[in-house]
Amino acid sequence: MAAPHPSRTLLVLGGARSGKSRHAQARAEALDLKLVYIATCEAQDEEMADRIARHRADRGARWTTIEVPLQLAEAVRAHAASDTVLLVDCLTLWASNLMFAERDAEQETGRLVDALTAAAGPVILVSNEVGLGIVPDNALARRFRDVAGRINQRIAEVVDEAVFLAAGLPLKLKGQSLIG
Amino acid sequence: MAAPHPSRTLLVLGGARSGKSRHAQARAEALDLKLVYIATCEAQDEEMADRIARHRADRGARWTTIEVPLQLAEAVRAHAASDTVLLVDCLTLWASNLMFAERDAEQETGRLVDALTAAAGPVILVSNEVGLGIVPDNALARRFRDVAGRINQRIAEVVDEAVFLAAGLPLKLKGQSLIG
Amino acid sequence: MAAPHPSRTLLVLGGARSGKSRHAQARAEALDLKLVYIATCEAQDEEMADRIARHRADRGARWTTIEVPLQLAEAVRAHAASDTVLLVDCLTLWASNLMFAERDAEQETGRLVDALTAAAGPVILVSNEVGLGIVPDNALARRFRDVAGRINQRIAEVVDEAVFLAAGLPLKLKGQSLIG
Repeated sequence: MAAPHPSRTLLVLGGARSGKSRHAQARAEALDLKLVYIATCEAQDEEMADRIARHRADRGARWTTIEVPLQLAEAVRAHAASDTVLLVDCLTLWASNLMFAERDAEQETGRLVDALTAAAGPVILVSNEVGLGIVPDNALARRFRDVAGRINQRIAEVVDEAVFLAAGLPLKLKGQSLIG
Repeated sequence: MAAPHPSRTLLVLGGARSGKSRHAQARAEALDLKLVYIATCEAQDEEMADRIARHRADRGARWTTIEVPLQLAEAVRAHAASDTVLLVDCLTLWASNLMFAERDAEQETGRLVDALTAAAGPVILVSNEVGLGIVPDNALARRFRDVAGRINQRIAEVVDEAVFLAAGLPLKLKGQSLIG
Repeated sequence: MAAPHPSRTLLVLGGARSGKSRHAQARAEALDLKLVYIATCEAQDEEMADRIARHRADRGARWTTIEVPLQLAEAVRAHAASDTVLLVDCLTLWASNLMFAERDAEQETGRLVDALTAAAGPVILVSNEVGLGIVPDNALARRFRDVAGRINQRIAEVVDEAVFLAAGLPLKLKGQSLIG
């Protein structure tokens, strides 16, 4: 990592199957650093277990994976280091986990922001944009959209760089390409 | 407001919780003009009433708010003035209101376009992009998507500037930043 | 068509009613070539039959239309020519057709990529982004989102130019405007 920028943060935003995770991984792997993957998902059914196993195999042996469904700020604080890039994948599942655990998403996001600001090494965060379809029928889905959207806005505000992925290709939302 | 551009129009497009309204308000407040907020929503249930009250409080005392569920062209004609910026929030609820009232959306949009063209002061319009999810199951939702999308295209065609918001950050669709 | 670029490929990505088809048609019509429209839809109900007839009438007499629900690689190979621009509209319905016909979407996409690479004239492909809403309730819709998203990524990777449409306006995802 070049000396003038000891710590940088990048938000990779996009839809399902937009190539977010692949883009984020490529950006991380382009750095000559240890690679730590912070997965916010837990395998709760077979479909998800299959995805997780496939994704882990796709990432390969360079990556260390840890599963952190809720305590994201703590995980970033514990693992951030100047010789390591952290990849958090993804904030949208984290939002869902916070809701189910009845945690205060705004407060937790504030704590994550503090952890990002304090991180000694680069952190890449992946998140879904989920608000571009028809208004969902059920109130829970609408509330989830609100929570996930607020987290995206808050994180986008503080990161050094943000991109919007479509069909695997990035549109620049803000900042310079300082990571990867 | 700089003399060479007495009237400018801006479309702020984005998903739910993408920061559209906040972006639009900030752009309006950056102008040294009277602020008029044209809300296209009416409180029809408690969830919506809560949102409206919260949004009104968020905007603060500088803003005058008027509720215009249907007669948007008339409202723009009545309130546009060289010392005032109008913020219309949002065209997607207006589309929904037109459908429920069985009004001809294409004709109403044409009338809105005429009013925008004639406006003596700047007008900022907020709208949702709702067509980027899975095709909805029910025909009414599909028709709504068509109506809302056609309105967005028609307005985007005539405004001076258009931006697409994601996570609170704007992507430039067209034009220069002449407002705010 | 200018001599240095005998063949070019363009992907037009966007939501429902985002102006994708209109943009793609305008880009094709700007070329002084024969116009062939490859429709991947078949009229399966009245709503769709109405749309197809309306779209065909909108395109006008300059266009030759062929309906190709499945054999897209073959159609591109059969119709690509240095004096012709092909417009494939759209890959998302093709993805749906492949799923219902229980064809291997990955393999078919590979064959389409080969056909695009071999094409003697320009090819414009239209596709929907469908992954930016809430996660669908049913597993089939989630699988469709995956298949459609993977096709978009694979095609975006190989085309010379890709744009994301919102409200009829293009955001550049990659490449230069070499077509139209």
